[in-house]
Amino acid sequence: MKLNIALLAGDGIGPEVIDQAVKVSNAVAKKFGHEISWTPALTGAAAIDAVGEPYPDETHAICENADAVLFGAIGHPKYDNDPSAKVRPEQGLLKMRKKLGLFANVRPTFTFPSLINKSPLKRERIEGTDLVFLRELTGGIYFGEKGRRENGEVAYDNCVYSREEVTRLAKKGFEMAMSRSKKLCCVDKANVLETSRLWRETVQAMEKDYPEVTVSYEFVDAVAMRLVQWPNSYDVLITENLFGDILTDEASVISGSMGLMPSASLGEKTSLFEPIHGSYPQAAGKDIANPLATILSAAMMFEDAFGLKEEAEAIRAVVNRSLEEGYVTEDLSEGAKSYKTSEVGDWLASKI
Amino acid sequence: MKLNIALLAGDGIGPEVIDQAVKVSNAVAKKFGHEISWTPALTGAAAIDAVGEPYPDETHAICENADAVLFGAIGHPKYDNDPSAKVRPEQGLLKMRKKLGLFANVRPTFTFPSLINKSPLKRERIEGTDLVFLRELTGGIYFGEKGRRENGEVAYDNCVYSREEVTRLAKKGFEMAMSRSKKLCCVDKANVLETSRLWRETVQAMEKDYPEVTVSYEFVDAVAMRLVQWPNSYDVLITENLFGDILTDEASVISGSMGLMPSASLGEKTSLFEPIHGSYPQAAGKDIANPLATILSAAMMFEDAFGLKEEAEAIRAVVNRSLEEGYVTEDLSEGAKSYKTSEVGDWLASKI
Ligand SMILES: CC(C)[C@H](C(=O)O)[C@@H](O)C(=O)O
Ligand SMILES: CC(C)[C@H](C(=O)O)[C@@H](O)C(=O)O
Repeated sequence: MKLNIALLAGDGIGPEVIDQAVKVSNAVAKKFGHEISWTPALTGAAAIDAVGEPYPDETHAICENADAVLFGAIGHPKYDNDPSAKVRPEQGLLKMRKKLGLFANVRPTFTFPSLINKSPLKRERIEGTDLVFLRELTGGIYFGEKGRRENGEVAYDNCVYSREEVTRLAKKGFEMAMSRSKKLCCVDKANVLETSRLWRETVQAMEKDYPEVTVSYEFVDAVAMRLVQWPNSYDVLITENLFGDILTDEASVISGSMGLMPSASLGEKTSLFEPIHGSYPQAAGKDIANPLATILSAAMMFEDAFGLKEEAEAIRAVVNRSLEEGYVTEDLSEGAKSYKTSEVGDWLASKI
Repeated sequence: MKLNIALLAGDGIGPEVIDQAVKVSNAVAKKFGHEISWTPALTGAAAIDAVGEPYPDETHAICENADAVLFGAIGHPKYDNDPSAKVRPEQGLLKMRKKLGLFANVRPTFTFPSLINKSPLKRERIEGTDLVFLRELTGGIYFGEKGRRENGEVAYDNCVYSREEVTRLAKKGFEMAMSRSKKLCCVDKANVLETSRLWRETVQAMEKDYPEVTVSYEFVDAVAMRLVQWPNSYDVLITENLFGDILTDEASVISGSMGLMPSASLGEKTSLFEPIHGSYPQAAGKDIANPLATILSAAMMFEDAFGLKEEAEAIRAVVNRSLEEGYVTEDLSEGAKSYKTSEVGDWLASKI
């Protein structure tokens, strides 16, 4: 199979972790007889520095024509804490999501037995947790009309959803529930928001098409609590953009494996795969960043973008092996010998 | 001093826990030579059943004329999971907040040494946590224009904030920071939302009036993470209505003492005090509900509504004693002998 992949390394540790994912992907491709064509493109602060904007048209053209996009991380301290700056890396991210139609952000939270002691939660609370959020990513208050009136004294943000947008996301949720434990939780604030009532009634109407799926409806504040109390009571959760932003980040820290969590953003034309961690500028260029989340994102890419499940499993197997054998970067080594980012990448590629 | 208090017992376990708070408050009043006049009024499902709406005008008149409102809980299963029902108890809550101008919801999260083992977090993560959220309660997306268009196929909710609303809430935040550790965190989503940018610029402009307070600005998704990771790194946090709804609930479960957490909603005319737990309908009428959160809410009332700090401390002291001596309801007794709701109230009143 010929795999046409856009490569957006981005900022900070992005380029280093992406390098390792490329090594491992190439090794898998070789083993299974695929041919990958990688097309690098600029994004984030790196793109602002080079061409004055975070998601250049050329990058968009490359992504649009690719079968999948592998993404590192964006964000640079010089743009931090200045939300009023004219050009910000985040704008590139939002523009990219919108223009590529990446409407469904898939964010799993699962545990690795060897990392469970890193969780802030007690072992009995977190053990066995294996949940996945589907966050709507191209609508809601992120993209509604926003602005000021009354000489800047009043600000507003509009949250808008259409039944079609909800249906599209919920469909992915039902399908994912069918492929897992057949439990779906719709997270909303239907006791207060009209958009949430639309979400709830739309999902309720879809229940009859998936008679095997048990659907629950929970308010966002209740989910924020239960995620800390009984995370393993959840399986598939669907929610709107802003609730998803908050809850997926909350979920990411409960497992102790945050540095390993991959994600996918599924679209109509193409899909994007990226680690959930940020650009971690303090570590940039030091060859110490943990590449496993990016490598596991590449595994998701093989499975979800190309339907290559065996290839994905091959990657996951070597990642598990590196954890078991302690061939890991310093953040995971617990005082034992640790390895460089590039060494971990080489080792994993050689074990494929 | 003459204390004129409206008493809104509400639904479920509300009446039972309110009864105990009244006993303890009366005991304190007697000891310190105050005279309390309690005026009961209907609210919640109880009010819907009696007069067809959850916050009747008569109740509003009673609250408006009171120096403080002591509130139990509202919510009844027959109104649950039916967000489209014509009359819902929550509407009464929102109407009450708006009509009484209760703009600042004060939600502390602290730990009791004897309860720390109930926390889902590891001891070293939660020990020493003592933070307080100030949640804006009468603005934002809760009260903006909302509705449907295109034959109901599109729903919208508007989030609106004025500089004045932000200033009013932030002022309380700065004052509270001054009376505590002089650390204030402004929680927003200024990388995406215009209302958040107004929040941030307003708070930034106020910094010069409180030179002793160190202010940090964090995104809501980052706070959702750090609350689970390092809750004791926070002190006073200010935020808008919806973020506050989610984060205060998340914060409430981390300490292990959720069943004991009081809250206040401060307004221009009057203030309201209530436990953060819900109406817990399954326990209603059984004399088993834990009354301590309501009793600690009464302590907040003595201190914040009437400036009676000694009286508040007297209540807190007996509550601590009941925890130490194990004179508690079954949810806290850890298999040891437990006491009825009314017995705990009687005991506390007798020890004042
Ligand atoms: C950087 C920011 C705009 C973005 C978001 O809010 O969506 C980030 O928090 C995320 O979750 O990917
Ligand atoms: C019941 C609901 C409307 C309410 C809110 O969202 O404000 C509740 O969750 C709260 O936090 O008091």
